[in-house]
Amino acid sequence: MSVEATDKSDRRLPKDVLQQRIDRVQQALRHAGIDVVFVTSEDNFRYLSGFESPTWINIARPRYCIVPARGDLILVVPTTNLAAVRATTWVEDVRSWVSPNPQDDGISIVAEALSSCLSQLRCIGAEMGPQSRLGMPVADFLRLRERLSTARMVDADALIREIRKIKSPFEVEAIRTVAMATSRAFLHLRRVLAKGCSQVEAVRTLRSTLLREGVDDAPYLVAESGFGGYPGLQMSATDRCLEDGMVLGIDAGCRFAGYFCDFNRNYAFGRINDRFRRINSVLWEATQAGIQAARPGALASDVWRAQAVVLDEGLGGLSSRRTESGRMGHGIGLRLTEPPSIHPNDTTVLVPGMTITVEPAAEFEVEMPTGTARNMLIHEENLVVMGNGPILLSDRAPREFLDVL
Amino acid sequence: MSVEATDKSDRRLPKDVLQQRIDRVQQALRHAGIDVVFVTSEDNFRYLSGFESPTWINIARPRYCIVPARGDLILVVPTTNLAAVRATTWVEDVRSWVSPNPQDDGISIVAEALSSCLSQLRCIGAEMGPQSRLGMPVADFLRLRERLSTARMVDADALIREIRKIKSPFEVEAIRTVAMATSRAFLHLRRVLAKGCSQVEAVRTLRSTLLREGVDDAPYLVAESGFGGYPGLQMSATDRCLEDGMVLGIDAGCRFAGYFCDFNRNYAFGRINDRFRRINSVLWEATQAGIQAARPGALASDVWRAQAVVLDEGLGGLSSRRTESGRMGHGIGLRLTEPPSIHPNDTTVLVPGMTITVEPAAEFEVEMPTGTARNMLIHEENLVVMGNGPILLSDRAPREFLDVL
Repeated sequence: MSVEATDKSDRRLPKDVLQQRIDRVQQALRHAGIDVVFVTSEDNFRYLSGFESPTWINIARPRYCIVPARGDLILVVPTTNLAAVRATTWVEDVRSWVSPNPQDDGISIVAEALSSCLSQLRCIGAEMGPQSRLGMPVADFLRLRERLSTARMVDADALIREIRKIKSPFEVEAIRTVAMATSRAFLHLRRVLAKGCSQVEAVRTLRSTLLREGVDDAPYLVAESGFGGYPGLQMSATDRCLEDGMVLGIDAGCRFAGYFCDFNRNYAFGRINDRFRRINSVLWEATQAGIQAARPGALASDVWRAQAVVLDEGLGGLSSRRTESGRMGHGIGLRLTEPPSIHPNDTTVLVPGMTITVEPAAEFEVEMPTGTARNMLIHEENLVVMGNGPILLSDRAPREFLDVL
Repeated sequence: MSVEATDKSDRRLPKDVLQQRIDRVQQALRHAGIDVVFVTSEDNFRYLSGFESPTWINIARPRYCIVPARGDLILVVPTTNLAAVRATTWVEDVRSWVSPNPQDDGISIVAEALSSCLSQLRCIGAEMGPQSRLGMPVADFLRLRERLSTARMVDADALIREIRKIKSPFEVEAIRTVAMATSRAFLHLRRVLAKGCSQVEAVRTLRSTLLREGVDDAPYLVAESGFGGYPGLQMSATDRCLEDGMVLGIDAGCRFAGYFCDFNRNYAFGRINDRFRRINSVLWEATQAGIQAARPGALASDVWRAQAVVLDEGLGGLSSRRTESGRMGHGIGLRLTEPPSIHPNDTTVLVPGMTITVEPAAEFEVEMPTGTARNMLIHEENLVVMGNGPILLSDRAPREFLDVL
């Protein structure tokens, strides 16, 4: 095995990229008066250490990344993860135990590692914010808090998110790569779809094409269909066949180098009622307004409002209305959805490097032989905010449905 | 849309299947003196309600399934999940809110729903056991506990797992289906692999084949390679090429109807040193011993010991040893790994309907031009314990490596 071969398969992020992230988090910790933070969620853990392994799906064994306000990272991981730690991180202080161990699944080592960071711990940060999840059993969290009860435990997720919100060129490039591959797969799907095929067949074809186009995986693929629109866009595909007059919506969250894209496309089968075509057109315009509003200095709520205005003006005459889903877009990155929310109450200021989705939705009633159905249409695109304005990461959906003949 | 078409796409589990699960949990709750349990993890939520949606990957919005010791289920879900709840569950009492809402992400509704289950709540169950994860922010968990502080909060995950441990014929069939599809895909891969191909190419081919063979998705696919064995079996594929003398291990956690299989195969490229072939053979025998030991009445630790004896006897003369990974197998089901652990300290009694993996591993040193590498080999099969003994769900790996010429 030549040195070259070894180097080629070195999968670690450059050391300085990771050190810059750690420096920023440490600065924020010191500013917030937090002595040390322990991180257990896949995305924060990967962001700070580079650690990558599909074993996150196995919740039998937790992992801990400890970031002191000053000094080096400590990783506390199961022995089974040691090889992956060596292969994907630069961290030197790695402690481990044989897991699962119902008596003590790493907690003693974590408590000791946290205590070792400072002679007198006063304040410990943990992932306790909204939209967060712990990657450890809650009973162990309570045990750890009890054991270190001389220190306060506070949320440190918010400050890590604040830093993660702004993507580096490397991160933007990863999202662009996966969004472009997904765009190509969506376009290819239009050419091979045919009336009468099923949702499952459509998604299966899309999934293979996505892999061929270079995404690492497609962990989020939902597909729904109906006349003029779909009941929602949150379920996996069924055997239901796509008949004349139906719209198939597919939403795709695909990943490359850990980073997600998240956008959908709408395929129209045969003759679609003109009313639905016009609703679709309003959504396209609303998406366009959202994209254009995503400029540095604008608030997340401004991007929401730009879309809402177009929807409210355009949908009224079509017996349709804006869907009350709370938000019309969100951040994307190491998670499928990240802060900010494109929501009327979210006052996050957009700055260069933020990657977001714009996602307006409309709902309407459809008269069917069997009664009235309530369907909807959604449009979504991905973009990065740059100094001069937004730059699309997904290709742009055409103004009309993707017609399948 | 005909009634037939609607029925065909009804994706709900039969009502009596779900009611039986709920009855068992309610009986266990009453036995344990727990008034009501709230469930937030994808697998427990799905087990009890039938709810299915790929949106679990989006952690912006939590979901709550409330099971009182007597009475009907209550679901508290974001408005965006209402259509999926209607399509996949039979639950009538469904309460919802527009999420994400940083001020109150469903907690008020959950607290009220829990309180409504009994005039005076004394004991609330939550997912607080080992190897569990909450599907909600921990701060909301603490808030909920504070708000309902007149009641004790205790673990109810253990009692749900106890019930889930024994699979119904429907569940066994789902695991058999995905394990057989994965077996076929593994065999097919041997025929198309060739020396010089890369790990990534191998996994990409396997992934397409898995989909073609009928798995719903393959969320866990790890691949590693090396001379005679691999450094571990926990990382995603790289561009590393498979040269003469190398072994490629692929471990696959694939899903069908929500249920996982979890087993691996070892592909040998070209001429493999006889020592490694003999180590591989010992692993095959250890797997065989583990399978045969998985009889009703045996303990999980007996299955561990049956494998350990074969490994300890067979590996000594080969300068190899049993890997100290803590366990040699585990339960499978709605999670990739579930209790019990095939571990020397796990005294779970095997009973008919339990689905487990048997997973011995050996490690050894390999002399390389660049120094000494520590590699390993793993074998894994899936089985269900039946009244007469174990029945394999995966096909059985051949006694020798899967040779690629």
